[in-house]
Amino acid sequence: MAEKVYQPGEHYEYPLIIKKLLNTPLVYSPDQEIVYRDQSRYTYRDLNERIGRLASGLAEMGIGAGDTVAVFDYDSNRFLEAFFAIPMMGAVLQMVNWRLSAEQIAYTLNHAEAKLIIINSDFLPILEGLEDKLEKVRAVVVIPETGEMPETGVKFDRVYDELLATSEPGYDFPDMDENTKATTFYTTGTTGDPKGVHFTHRQLVLHTLSTAIAVGSYDTIGRCRAEDVYMPITPMFHVHAWGFPYIATMLGMKQVYPGKYEPEMLVKLVVTEKVTVSHCVPTILQMITGSPVVKQFDLSSWKVIIGGAKLSKGLAKAAMEMGITVYTGYGMSETCPIISLATPKKHMMAWEEDRLLDVVIKTGLPIPLVEFEIVDPDDRPMPHDGMSTGEVVFRAPWLTRSYFKAPDKSAELWQNGWLHSGDVGHIDAEGYLQITDRIKDVIKSGGEWVSSLDLENLMSQHEAILESAAIGVPDEKWGERPMMIVMIRPEYQGKVSADDLKAYMKAAAAEGKLPKYGVPDRYEFVDEIAKTSVGKLDKKVMRNMYH
Amino acid sequence: MAEKVYQPGEHYEYPLIIKKLLNTPLVYSPDQEIVYRDQSRYTYRDLNERIGRLASGLAEMGIGAGDTVAVFDYDSNRFLEAFFAIPMMGAVLQMVNWRLSAEQIAYTLNHAEAKLIIINSDFLPILEGLEDKLEKVRAVVVIPETGEMPETGVKFDRVYDELLATSEPGYDFPDMDENTKATTFYTTGTTGDPKGVHFTHRQLVLHTLSTAIAVGSYDTIGRCRAEDVYMPITPMFHVHAWGFPYIATMLGMKQVYPGKYEPEMLVKLVVTEKVTVSHCVPTILQMITGSPVVKQFDLSSWKVIIGGAKLSKGLAKAAMEMGITVYTGYGMSETCPIISLATPKKHMMAWEEDRLLDVVIKTGLPIPLVEFEIVDPDDRPMPHDGMSTGEVVFRAPWLTRSYFKAPDKSAELWQNGWLHSGDVGHIDAEGYLQITDRIKDVIKSGGEWVSSLDLENLMSQHEAILESAAIGVPDEKWGERPMMIVMIRPEYQGKVSADDLKAYMKAAAAEGKLPKYGVPDRYEFVDEIAKTSVGKLDKKVMRNMYH
Repeated sequence: MAEKVYQPGEHYEYPLIIKKLLNTPLVYSPDQEIVYRDQSRYTYRDLNERIGRLASGLAEMGIGAGDTVAVFDYDSNRFLEAFFAIPMMGAVLQMVNWRLSAEQIAYTLNHAEAKLIIINSDFLPILEGLEDKLEKVRAVVVIPETGEMPETGVKFDRVYDELLATSEPGYDFPDMDENTKATTFYTTGTTGDPKGVHFTHRQLVLHTLSTAIAVGSYDTIGRCRAEDVYMPITPMFHVHAWGFPYIATMLGMKQVYPGKYEPEMLVKLVVTEKVTVSHCVPTILQMITGSPVVKQFDLSSWKVIIGGAKLSKGLAKAAMEMGITVYTGYGMSETCPIISLATPKKHMMAWEEDRLLDVVIKTGLPIPLVEFEIVDPDDRPMPHDGMSTGEVVFRAPWLTRSYFKAPDKSAELWQNGWLHSGDVGHIDAEGYLQITDRIKDVIKSGGEWVSSLDLENLMSQHEAILESAAIGVPDEKWGERPMMIVMIRPEYQGKVSADDLKAYMKAAAAEGKLPKYGVPDRYEFVDEIAKTSVGKLDKKVMRNMYH
Repeated sequence: MAEKVYQPGEHYEYPLIIKKLLNTPLVYSPDQEIVYRDQSRYTYRDLNERIGRLASGLAEMGIGAGDTVAVFDYDSNRFLEAFFAIPMMGAVLQMVNWRLSAEQIAYTLNHAEAKLIIINSDFLPILEGLEDKLEKVRAVVVIPETGEMPETGVKFDRVYDELLATSEPGYDFPDMDENTKATTFYTTGTTGDPKGVHFTHRQLVLHTLSTAIAVGSYDTIGRCRAEDVYMPITPMFHVHAWGFPYIATMLGMKQVYPGKYEPEMLVKLVVTEKVTVSHCVPTILQMITGSPVVKQFDLSSWKVIIGGAKLSKGLAKAAMEMGITVYTGYGMSETCPIISLATPKKHMMAWEEDRLLDVVIKTGLPIPLVEFEIVDPDDRPMPHDGMSTGEVVFRAPWLTRSYFKAPDKSAELWQNGWLHSGDVGHIDAEGYLQITDRIKDVIKSGGEWVSSLDLENLMSQHEAILESAAIGVPDEKWGERPMMIVMIRPEYQGKVSADDLKAYMKAAAAEGKLPKYGVPDRYEFVDEIAKTSVGKLDKKVMRNMYH
């Protein structure tokens, strides 16, 4: 029973390690289901056995404590197995953003010193041609997406399900120091090499506990509890799919993994598997609310937490009208990721819908244990008046301690004992944070700051606008001036002009929704707005295009 | 902003300390109320200020890090203030069980090295005559229960509210090592001196997080969430009132403190303050369900977690019939205290009431992070078949590390890396633990074990029985034989005989509810059943009486 020899009276020093999250679900919900598309379905009992088998298989292949295992996969039960098995062995799970360029991926694998790769066969083309560039990778395990191995030039060692089938179900997962590194992920700024954030067992356990409380006990709309059915629509590679697979597992929730994001499959799974809680970026929600197919279904028990970019009021309203409960979640790759949720307070629940919408699109209130502040350039806290704008800084038990092997970048991240987010925002008297911009995206016009997010939010409420981006373009007189880049809805093509949009923004300024100097001069109509690999507006690209 | 000077890139090492639990409620619910009887009512903002004032006042009186402050009080806002202020200073809060004898109290104060006492004026008579015996106590602060100071022979230094009124509201609570001792409590066995359990900041924070999840997200009946209204009916001195004041505060719940337990006041507060969640021992629930006054009120939104002694099916049924949601919570002074809750699983919610009652009266399922097992005398785990009985052992992040300054007793508590509870029980295939007895109370008849709790539970279902206790009495042939001590309901006085009760138990044995050798031979009718200071059956006293 005991892993070590204890003296009488010697207490057990309980470490906050990931294996402990499995304690309760295996008692509460051993028969609960974990579903992968329409392809597989098994129980928590099976999950536990497969976690053991994966660890045994990896150990046979030479993986031990401290080694990094990189996973390339869609949102799947395999990724969930990796979320547990790899850290529970004492190894490090690298979540690979397969949307990066092949060169960037090679950089991250080398930088993280990945020793083994588990890869969905759909991503093998990325590996082809990279093999010579990978410095530490010794073995490759392939997950054939269709069940059959495709032709590939990649030399691989094992097939995932065969590895599990032939390895031992029992693996004696050791206790370890709770500060052992468990996961890593590379975040891409708009300049320079990807930066590696990393999280320990302790950090992940605490993030799981606090987020579970925030979504289960604080939230007065859209609570997530043991009887909910979870499906991510934010990639699992993206900082642990916001930590929800850990929460869902700890609570013994039914889990549904959609694989590759295909609109029809997503909707089908929501309806047939009775999914009640998801998270996604605004673009995906937009796709859902805009689909005529989706409108046929009853989605009134679906709660969707929106993050990654600003949830516009227009989009929130469209979702609410379809019966979907939406609110904002906020965090960064550096923050594990959750920092805040835009849950209404008890007294706000009586508010009319329009006023409540203004709450749920905010950046939100801190989840338990989190502290945030807004500070001036000298790191002095600024008033919580909903007006004063400063850089957002954090403290929480789950913030990355540094960028891996990048002390210069870490020195910008951590200053005066607070993690500096690079976001600017304000905090209102109720304590709600509102991010108004990235520091580098703020438009500086004649000594005043104009929030590009405010401009985009206003623009999104115009009936003709599908999506928009605001950037600062150089101006001789003012230093910078705001400019809008807009996508028009198909039915409004040719029916709205730049002058119409400018008049709309001027009217908004006249109503006090925007300072007068904030009204953009220029409106560029485009068919597609530049995005980064994780779906965020790529303003660096836009600024280069329109400087 | 920063307490220390940080180098660029140096991360903030976030400690799990009690002051961090206040972060979210002060943002979410600054105007939420904390009520003391019909005497006072203030907000979380006020609570925060009073915590600062209490710390400043205690610091002026010479209290610093590592000092012990002993509190004697009813359940009150003052005790809540002490729950936070004292540990947040780095001092240790000693929760004093004022039901112990004066000698025992003196022993615990000396053993804990208490330096300052905060005492409700109602308990001053305990201190009178003890003053010479207290070795380390340097100062006394009195809380006049009625607002006016009673005549007392106790030399006291300050009056609580005056101390707060004259001290600074701001206190710069330091960060500290999360393993700093925060609280201590003395538990009384049936033999020997009281034993001091103690808990660190880390332990209390983790207990709060896990219990909040267990009551908020797992429970399919009687969930406790931010909008609930909390009132303890288990003394706050008794291991932090099961940790609920910390949970209620973290969630920003309205809190109601009833002071001295007076049935009328309790019911009045439940009704007028709209209390929705409480915890108490079966005796209190019995008093409530048995009161004709209570029956006039609608208590259908009241959830009551029952602990401290076995919740009998008869009592659970009576409560449920009044609309009160009840289920068992289990733990010990040594375990901070919560280990398990008897929450039904999702699939059980469809069961008929009688079957569901059998679930909620069990000892329960482990809350997140908790591990429990039943073991044989060689500490080997026993099967989870609902039949095999062994000693219950625990692992959790919040178990006392030792009995303070009592290595010999600690050596019994911690063996082979598991905390040994001294309780015996079984675990069924669904994972529910059922305590069947204390090891020392098990009745050993002819080599077989008879559970005294099973006998009491069966007896409680007899219509004439108000309360009962089963003990083993020496027997020449069998070693021990079970004996029942019973209290008859007033309306059945003189209408039921020992033979009737024996016939009832024999019938139960014939139905397989009890082994035949378990039917007690002797039935003793009493007016009162011996209890310990915390309301548990005092079997040591009974065994001495009937040996």
